[in-house]
Amino acid sequence: MIDPESASVYRRRAAAMLDRAGIVITPAELDNMELADFALNEFERTGLAIVVYENNSRYCAKELIMFPGMTCPEHRHPPVGTDPGKQETFRCRWGVVYLYTEGEATPNPHAAPPPAPDGAYTVFHEVVLRPGEQYTLPPNTRHWFQAGPDGAIVSEFSSPSRDEADIFTDVRIRRVEG
Amino acid sequence: MIDPESASVYRRRAAAMLDRAGIVITPAELDNMELADFALNEFERTGLAIVVYENNSRYCAKELIMFPGMTCPEHRHPPVGTDPGKQETFRCRWGVVYLYTEGEATPNPHAAPPPAPDGAYTVFHEVVLRPGEQYTLPPNTRHWFQAGPDGAIVSEFSSPSRDEADIFTDVRIRRVEG
Repeated sequence: MIDPESASVYRRRAAAMLDRAGIVITPAELDNMELADFALNEFERTGLAIVVYENNSRYCAKELIMFPGMTCPEHRHPPVGTDPGKQETFRCRWGVVYLYTEGEATPNPHAAPPPAPDGAYTVFHEVVLRPGEQYTLPPNTRHWFQAGPDGAIVSEFSSPSRDEADIFTDVRIRRVEG
Repeated sequence: MIDPESASVYRRRAAAMLDRAGIVITPAELDNMELADFALNEFERTGLAIVVYENNSRYCAKELIMFPGMTCPEHRHPPVGTDPGKQETFRCRWGVVYLYTEGEATPNPHAAPPPAPDGAYTVFHEVVLRPGEQYTLPPNTRHWFQAGPDGAIVSEFSSPSRDEADIFTDVRIRRVEG
């Protein structure tokens, strides 16, 4: 849980980053900005600030705001009923983001996972995304990503989001507060 | 058809608008920018410049660039097979866009359709979108939109695009060059 005072500070900081990138959100979107700390209580290290523009039964669009060096921890989006699992496209808008997914481990990667129990990070194939660059992840594929030294803003286009279905590799993590 | 020299000028102008709005696209995206003139040969009046970020079997994301006063003509996205028709969310990123759709006609609307044959424009319920504002259109709903005096940049998030299925009210129009 993030206490309300810290949440207010984080939202203002994320809003300043959006502003610097020329991305306009409404006051209501700022108030509703999601701050995911994955129940780890280290938001600035392992977290994600999220503005959900639209999430309906057919598609989803979000803006992800990451502070410098912030990591979104390793997870996958499994099949749910007839849905083969969330498919998503990450498009870097500002800063740089290092994305790691399944495949051959990249030698000398730009980023390293934050301190975590053994086995919390298992995929190390690197994709570097700078502004204007994007990558589409197939459903049910493990991935994690970390912002560069100035932070990052990433647009996510995807099939519908069902955050409660996400499976994290780090067994300590809960995505949605229970 | 837009001649190659004009197309080059239009793309550079659209690129300058994106740049001013802080939106980065790749050189390949600029080269592939779609210039839809709807077979009317009046691109600056009735047209749309489009960067398709992603269009797969599950979702679609585009950036729409509109010159000052430019109109995307009235159309709808009908059901195709088991697909109920394209559903789409327009999010204004820069400038202002006047969107017209089904419903009670708005008195004193901001925009008027470009000159066109009788019956080419039939819906006049106005939605004004300024930066950070968005609107989601149900499938198979007639709509058209016009940029304000400085032009507009609009992100479109949607179910998959099948442009060739679009039905335009103006019978002169062909969306995809045959």
